[in-house]
Amino acid sequence: MSAPGPLSLNTVTVKERWGLADCIEGCARHGIAGISPWRDVLQAMGVAAAARQIRDAGLTVTGLCRGGMFPAADAAGRAAAIEDNRRAIAEAHALGAACLVMVCGGLPPGSKDLPGARAMVGDGLHAILAEARAAGVTLALEPLHPMTCADRSVLSTLGQALDLCDELGAGTGVALDVYHVWWDPALESDMARATSRIAAFHACDWLVPTTDLVFDRGMMGDGCIDIPAIRGMAEAAGYRGFVEVELLSKRWWAEDPDDVLRLIKARHATAC
Amino acid sequence: MSAPGPLSLNTVTVKERWGLADCIEGCARHGIAGISPWRDVLQAMGVAAAARQIRDAGLTVTGLCRGGMFPAADAAGRAAAIEDNRRAIAEAHALGAACLVMVCGGLPPGSKDLPGARAMVGDGLHAILAEARAAGVTLALEPLHPMTCADRSVLSTLGQALDLCDELGAGTGVALDVYHVWWDPALESDMARATSRIAAFHACDWLVPTTDLVFDRGMMGDGCIDIPAIRGMAEAAGYRGFVEVELLSKRWWAEDPDDVLRLIKARHATAC
Repeated sequence: MSAPGPLSLNTVTVKERWGLADCIEGCARHGIAGISPWRDVLQAMGVAAAARQIRDAGLTVTGLCRGGMFPAADAAGRAAAIEDNRRAIAEAHALGAACLVMVCGGLPPGSKDLPGARAMVGDGLHAILAEARAAGVTLALEPLHPMTCADRSVLSTLGQALDLCDELGAGTGVALDVYHVWWDPALESDMARATSRIAAFHACDWLVPTTDLVFDRGMMGDGCIDIPAIRGMAEAAGYRGFVEVELLSKRWWAEDPDDVLRLIKARHATAC
Repeated sequence: MSAPGPLSLNTVTVKERWGLADCIEGCARHGIAGISPWRDVLQAMGVAAAARQIRDAGLTVTGLCRGGMFPAADAAGRAAAIEDNRRAIAEAHALGAACLVMVCGGLPPGSKDLPGARAMVGDGLHAILAEARAAGVTLALEPLHPMTCADRSVLSTLGQALDLCDELGAGTGVALDVYHVWWDPALESDMARATSRIAAFHACDWLVPTTDLVFDRGMMGDGCIDIPAIRGMAEAAGYRGFVEVELLSKRWWAEDPDDVLRLIKARHATAC
């Protein structure tokens, strides 16, 4: 099959040792063409300075992580989430990001009302959609692994994300992370349904065994995900963009980021 | 809504301290009407002795855990799995179990071939179906949470289990554990599709946060699953059977089983 699209570094991959300026320099040093910052490191550097330095380094911003987190226990909490998403849209616009990655949020603390939380996600997305469209920022809905349903994302499958895109219309798409979707029996048919709506393609691997529900993602090639097969489905649907590497991993956070970037480059070539 | 169906104890819930004879006596002592043994404690007690003692105690055997685990790296491994499933069918028959719960198996070690593993599951089920029918043992396909896809079950959703039931026909059904399916956006529509095929209903809870992918299940009422809502879906589909409590939990394994059974009885009344 074809070679994978160009590589992008999601900054969370090296978050324990590098700030955003380090990441920008690291990408330039290692010949990595794309970057996807998280908002914490972006704000620590300052949006204007970050936008300038990323542009000067010639990097493509493949996404900004993250908007979403809409469900809250009360109306004030939900309004605050929407306000924060407005700031995220402005930041994504300032960076010229290809999309704003939406991690939609889990159940409000103590709640068992899953349909209610899903409705809050829909309401939140509707509330920010016009602003995202005006800013030219694609809202990339990211289905997260069902094991995160309670506390991170009630949006659990690609099919569910596409249903929401159907409902919301222009200005929306999906962020597809192989880690979150690889197990899904409907993956192939839903990928065909995605067509041009795949706004981002994230890679890492599922380790066997996995020892933590959040921070034990594997380096591509070290786990059981057939990443090239899923990339092939994305490309068959029309995706021609970057392969963004997003590793939340205590194991890799402990390593020298330059070593991690070297290994990512190698695995991008052999395991993606 | 209506009161939950009668209670059944899955023996894994107290596996660190009680063998099967203890479980049978414990159910009788606490007025728990059903029991669902795992095969390890069944074999340790002996099938004939267990069947006799369960019958003498007047308990209903709501299931035998577990058949399945079909995928293997080579033909000999797959044949051995099928042989073991034949023994499980015979044991379920000897106990008069309402079903044999099928945990279908994950990827063979080192494999990334998910479609291949799913095919092995289908092949294995086809291989044992005639024997199960002849023995009057319902094969209850249990969709397991997607976080177990790599190492325990490539059967991840109720919809996927029902598709398999459609394909296999008479003698098959589903074992529905709220822990494995609560997150599924298709749950309500798939439950309606299940009709008379729900062979078992398992209860526990999803803790927030969950700290282990296998052994951190919560007591009903301690987590975020709306168990009565899911039971209501099962009853709307026609289910009239037991509520079987299956807790894999280091926290509860450390407690006195009599205390655990008392709490299960209380939570069965208030949180199921």
